[in-house]
Amino acid sequence: MAVYTDVAADELAEYLSHYDLGELMSYKGIAEGVENSNFLLHTSQGSFILTLYEKRVERIDLPFFLGLMTHLATHGINCPQPVLNRAGEALGVLAGRPAAIITFLEGIWPRKPTAGHCAGVGEVLARMHLAGADFGMTRANALSVKGWRPLFAAAAPRADELQPGLAGFLAAELAYLESGVWPNGLPRGVIHADLFPDNVFFLGNRLSGVIDFTFACDDMLAYDVAICLNAWCFEGDHAFNVTKARAFLNAYTRVRKLSGAEQDALPLLARGAAIRFLLTRLVDWLNVPPGALVRPKDPLEYVRKLRFHQTVASVRDYGFEAPGMVA
Amino acid sequence: MAVYTDVAADELAEYLSHYDLGELMSYKGIAEGVENSNFLLHTSQGSFILTLYEKRVERIDLPFFLGLMTHLATHGINCPQPVLNRAGEALGVLAGRPAAIITFLEGIWPRKPTAGHCAGVGEVLARMHLAGADFGMTRANALSVKGWRPLFAAAAPRADELQPGLAGFLAAELAYLESGVWPNGLPRGVIHADLFPDNVFFLGNRLSGVIDFTFACDDMLAYDVAICLNAWCFEGDHAFNVTKARAFLNAYTRVRKLSGAEQDALPLLARGAAIRFLLTRLVDWLNVPPGALVRPKDPLEYVRKLRFHQTVASVRDYGFEAPGMVA
Repeated sequence: MAVYTDVAADELAEYLSHYDLGELMSYKGIAEGVENSNFLLHTSQGSFILTLYEKRVERIDLPFFLGLMTHLATHGINCPQPVLNRAGEALGVLAGRPAAIITFLEGIWPRKPTAGHCAGVGEVLARMHLAGADFGMTRANALSVKGWRPLFAAAAPRADELQPGLAGFLAAELAYLESGVWPNGLPRGVIHADLFPDNVFFLGNRLSGVIDFTFACDDMLAYDVAICLNAWCFEGDHAFNVTKARAFLNAYTRVRKLSGAEQDALPLLARGAAIRFLLTRLVDWLNVPPGALVRPKDPLEYVRKLRFHQTVASVRDYGFEAPGMVA
Repeated sequence: MAVYTDVAADELAEYLSHYDLGELMSYKGIAEGVENSNFLLHTSQGSFILTLYEKRVERIDLPFFLGLMTHLATHGINCPQPVLNRAGEALGVLAGRPAAIITFLEGIWPRKPTAGHCAGVGEVLARMHLAGADFGMTRANALSVKGWRPLFAAAAPRADELQPGLAGFLAAELAYLESGVWPNGLPRGVIHADLFPDNVFFLGNRLSGVIDFTFACDDMLAYDVAICLNAWCFEGDHAFNVTKARAFLNAYTRVRKLSGAEQDALPLLARGAAIRFLLTRLVDWLNVPPGALVRPKDPLEYVRKLRFHQTVASVRDYGFEAPGMVA
């Protein structure tokens, strides 16, 4: 939940005067997203989302995010579209922050994902990976293997406050992932990098769209698959659900085949994805500012997931049996 | 800002299956209201607000609030209307809490009220007071003079943490207000009791409606006027703005005359209203639970307001000069 910055009606009216959005009828701060302040606007032309970009989001990256949404839509991916002002710009400044208005996407994110939801996510992830192939902009992934050491350094001194031995556990895992095992040469492209359930909308059983591209970047496509395995295929008690993983992976590969090298790398990539979210959650957990209006997410959920991936011998443990796959 | 309870999509779908609201297209927790969890729903039939009633709201009072909204609407007051399920009920249970769906009211609450806004509020407050005259239900005001002593007792031991001398200041004021000076015999009726700027919507300069009746009750009508003087007629630095107060009071009296006794009582009622909000804010301030997602409102704002009202000799100090008024 996040509304860090309120916006006065007159400031907003002035901002909207540069757009052709009709008359503003209401705006409500909404409890979605933990990085930015988001408002749902009703105007005489429909519903829109106004985002004020707060901490962690670099202004220089915003054209990448906004451009990607436009690019994906032209390739048939349903996602919010940046609304341009009369000067043709998607990005402005409101309440002292970078701001953008995007179209409102109807749909409901699944609080308790089913195997059917996981199949929908697998399909749309693969379609996004194909659609991103000819996107002209690039953005490095600041939260890949090289980005984990600084997060660990920030969190390690107090990690054992959460769970005795956690700092040592993380140190060993990080040393392993940094020891030259991290894959090279796998197919790369634009990844969403944060495709958690709250970023995927459904209407009934039909996936209606994908939102929140503020972590999108260039990286190995299979790393995005590994992130989704973590985000979608565990139960509320953090136990792995092989039925959901099979549904997710099968749906993905029906649209984009995973190469043998990608399949082999998946358990390692899943460990990397787990430690990435574990570390950012841990830093957030240990640094909740007084009066914060955000409840930090539980880092220990990802300890459980990481321990599971450490036991995985091959992609078949994720329920994946590619046709024609040779062990 | 408040979303205390999240609702799973399947729970919500089941709840909505008892209503004729069409297909659910989205729901977002919204950052409005500090007492309850509120969601903005889009369905194929339009926009609605779903409220889950949390702490401080007694289930037994909900029919009063919901009935009042229906009653006021039939008397021309624009306010949200309870949506009945197919069994004809406005009140249900969702996520373990009493729940109600009301129509969505378009409009924007003024972050920086002008004298024009204050005039709009004065007019609608008087119209509500007239409209409430034949409302058949009653609800005692738990936060009138008899309700302040327990709040003071809860807050006094730590009040000086906020401002040295605050406990003594409050003790003296409370002793005075309890000493038999609190008015008797003034015209009574249904009051809103919480008509702050975030509960009054405007479209352009036109008042589009009034929301949030969860403090509505029976009390002196002039006490509602006194609450609005506190809520609307001070600047951001808590200095009294006589222009706004004049606009508010004149607009009120054009619809409903304030009797001489009401006018005479207004400075005292304004002191009472100030200490009422001061005390509840102070209790909230001193009792923010760890991990609370609500930023408590500043109690000291009402110390400034109370000190001002203590200096007021007559209603004329509020800028009010009733036609034919005799000093």
